[in-house]
Amino acid sequence: MENAGTYLDHMRARAPLVQNITNYVAMNVMANVMLAAGCSPAMAHDEGEAAEFAGLADALSVNIGTLDPAWLRSMEAAAGVMNAAGKPWVLDPVAVGATALRRDAGARLLALKPSIIRGNASEIIALAGAEAAGKGADSADAVSDAEGAARALARQIGGVVAVTGAVDFVTDGDTAWRVHGGHALMPRITVMGCSLTGIVAAFAVGQAALPATVAALAYYAVAGAIAGEKAAGPASFQVAFIDALHALTPEDVTARARIEAA
Amino acid sequence: MENAGTYLDHMRARAPLVQNITNYVAMNVMANVMLAAGCSPAMAHDEGEAAEFAGLADALSVNIGTLDPAWLRSMEAAAGVMNAAGKPWVLDPVAVGATALRRDAGARLLALKPSIIRGNASEIIALAGAEAAGKGADSADAVSDAEGAARALARQIGGVVAVTGAVDFVTDGDTAWRVHGGHALMPRITVMGCSLTGIVAAFAVGQAALPATVAALAYYAVAGAIAGEKAAGPASFQVAFIDALHALTPEDVTARARIEAA
Amino acid sequence: MENAGTYLDHMRARAPLVQNITNYVAMNVMANVMLAAGCSPAMAHDEGEAAEFAGLADALSVNIGTLDPAWLRSMEAAAGVMNAAGKPWVLDPVAVGATALRRDAGARLLALKPSIIRGNASEIIALAGAEAAGKGADSADAVSDAEGAARALARQIGGVVAVTGAVDFVTDGDTAWRVHGGHALMPRITVMGCSLTGIVAAFAVGQAALPATVAALAYYAVAGAIAGEKAAGPASFQVAFIDALHALTPEDVTARARIEAA
Repeated sequence: MENAGTYLDHMRARAPLVQNITNYVAMNVMANVMLAAGCSPAMAHDEGEAAEFAGLADALSVNIGTLDPAWLRSMEAAAGVMNAAGKPWVLDPVAVGATALRRDAGARLLALKPSIIRGNASEIIALAGAEAAGKGADSADAVSDAEGAARALARQIGGVVAVTGAVDFVTDGDTAWRVHGGHALMPRITVMGCSLTGIVAAFAVGQAALPATVAALAYYAVAGAIAGEKAAGPASFQVAFIDALHALTPEDVTARARIEAA
Repeated sequence: MENAGTYLDHMRARAPLVQNITNYVAMNVMANVMLAAGCSPAMAHDEGEAAEFAGLADALSVNIGTLDPAWLRSMEAAAGVMNAAGKPWVLDPVAVGATALRRDAGARLLALKPSIIRGNASEIIALAGAEAAGKGADSADAVSDAEGAARALARQIGGVVAVTGAVDFVTDGDTAWRVHGGHALMPRITVMGCSLTGIVAAFAVGQAALPATVAALAYYAVAGAIAGEKAAGPASFQVAFIDALHALTPEDVTARARIEAA
Repeated sequence: MENAGTYLDHMRARAPLVQNITNYVAMNVMANVMLAAGCSPAMAHDEGEAAEFAGLADALSVNIGTLDPAWLRSMEAAAGVMNAAGKPWVLDPVAVGATALRRDAGARLLALKPSIIRGNASEIIALAGAEAAGKGADSADAVSDAEGAARALARQIGGVVAVTGAVDFVTDGDTAWRVHGGHALMPRITVMGCSLTGIVAAFAVGQAALPATVAALAYYAVAGAIAGEKAAGPASFQVAFIDALHALTPEDVTARARIEAA
């Protein structure tokens, strides 16, 4: 894939409204990441408005990080609206293997066939129904161990699955790509993955899901590599990372993206 | 208005306790903005304590950004306490035009006659009952298009309405002011407006609402201009902005404030 | 205590999974502080999973900052699991004296005998049943005024109480320590105390509660002193502080810790 930057350009020109029904830890940083990238994030979760809001949104992300049953019902309602309208929605199955509540939520959301799923290796393995080694929200499995699970899940939903880690793996169940880059500090900062899920949703508006997801991950990885050059630790990394998301041009992304067929 | 800085001085000397029933996205940054400025923010939202807490607070801010019905009931109860005690409270009608839940919440809170309303142009237009063009929490209308709505709302509540944007507009329905300054990066950072609402509440303690609101906006705009000189992007802007709120003296604010009669 | 750094070393080697049932304001920064220090934080609060999640966690922190009754029930259930398993849990009684809801929550959680309690002076005094002068979440009492309350509470729970402020005081009801350091900007940044509570929980895994708590506070104070040398205000302080938590070695902590018997 030689044109990752054109997806950034398309996203910024459209500046899509992305509804995020996400966890309490992620909300602020996710909104800032999405604003820096160039889209319009909105958080609206109540059962009394989640579906109505989804009707206004161009894309949806749902994230089970700090789940409760009422929020899950809103996620299902909003996802249903996106499906009916043919608009993309992305599932982030945080720590899906950890508890019965999360396993049940994962199964229910999977049944609604998200356009795209983005998770770490342990989450993708657990969502596919296999035995995973996650510790809370952190992965204890390697991305390479999740490739089979990712392909199986992608076929099951008829969509795209992205496993993110040191090297990302993205597949529609048939074709697959690897995205290199990023920085070793990224796992030492919370909600980097959650925020990326929102970026993936924004990139998917009006685009084919597979290249849009690959391009979103490449953009994120380039920003991570740039931030890593300036950071003195995880907090200054986060500042430099968000600044880089804002400063990066489509041409920068195309030039620096490290994408290979898997 | 030649003495904006004296309102900052008054606020810091009083260091008011401001209760904020606000959205999940805003809470952390809003608290940091308010602490940097020199007041004591507190977040307490449960129906079992919201009104009791309001009895302890010097001012209240309510924000419907991530609303649900229980939080709305707490907002109403706390606002009632402030009204009965003659203490100021400020309404931030985030994305009020977007859904029925928000329109209903806006109408119910408006009926309680907030001392001050602060919103973007689309929110003020929607709250006044006209057709607005907001996209989620972002304004799609110009401040100048909301001046009539602001004046009408101010008369309706017998209070003050602030429309914030590239140039802010503040009115009590009769007198009006414009506040210049700030920086183009401010809309690229989430909850800058929400946090300002808390600052407005703190400035209003023991002061007339109109000049206190104008002074709070001028202080914020000066800090924004200073931060803009140092920022490499939205995240470093936010760091520099909060540092500037803390470092600014009343004399700085008076000297750098750009306020004109409208 | 001459070996504070060895507790940091032990914590990082173990990298414990710490469940935090905490307030909305704290969640993001607390997670980043804990990741920077070297443990794995996880936020899971729903009644449908809080106790189950506690079964997976190495330690638990509970914080009543933005309390509601459902969250309190989850805190009690998770604390019960930790007690039954002999795993440490830490109580952070935010603004416990402010309202009936908080006083009741404080009494109920105290009855479950937390391993460690960390609060500011006003909170510790209020939790011990005396008249405190707190203003919202901010202390209006001096640490020295809370020493008697801390000793009494420590005996009551058969555990450790830490009163944090300009100079921290830590006791098991018999032995007591003072920890010096930190920086004057720390009270101007929200959730510094909440985040420290999570660090204390991580340090307590597999260690005696008293020296682990003292070491955690010393580590935090050293990072604060380092950050203070670089900060231009509260927001740049927070960035430098989290970077310092990440960069500090056990040897640095031992060399720079300022701990004295009380």
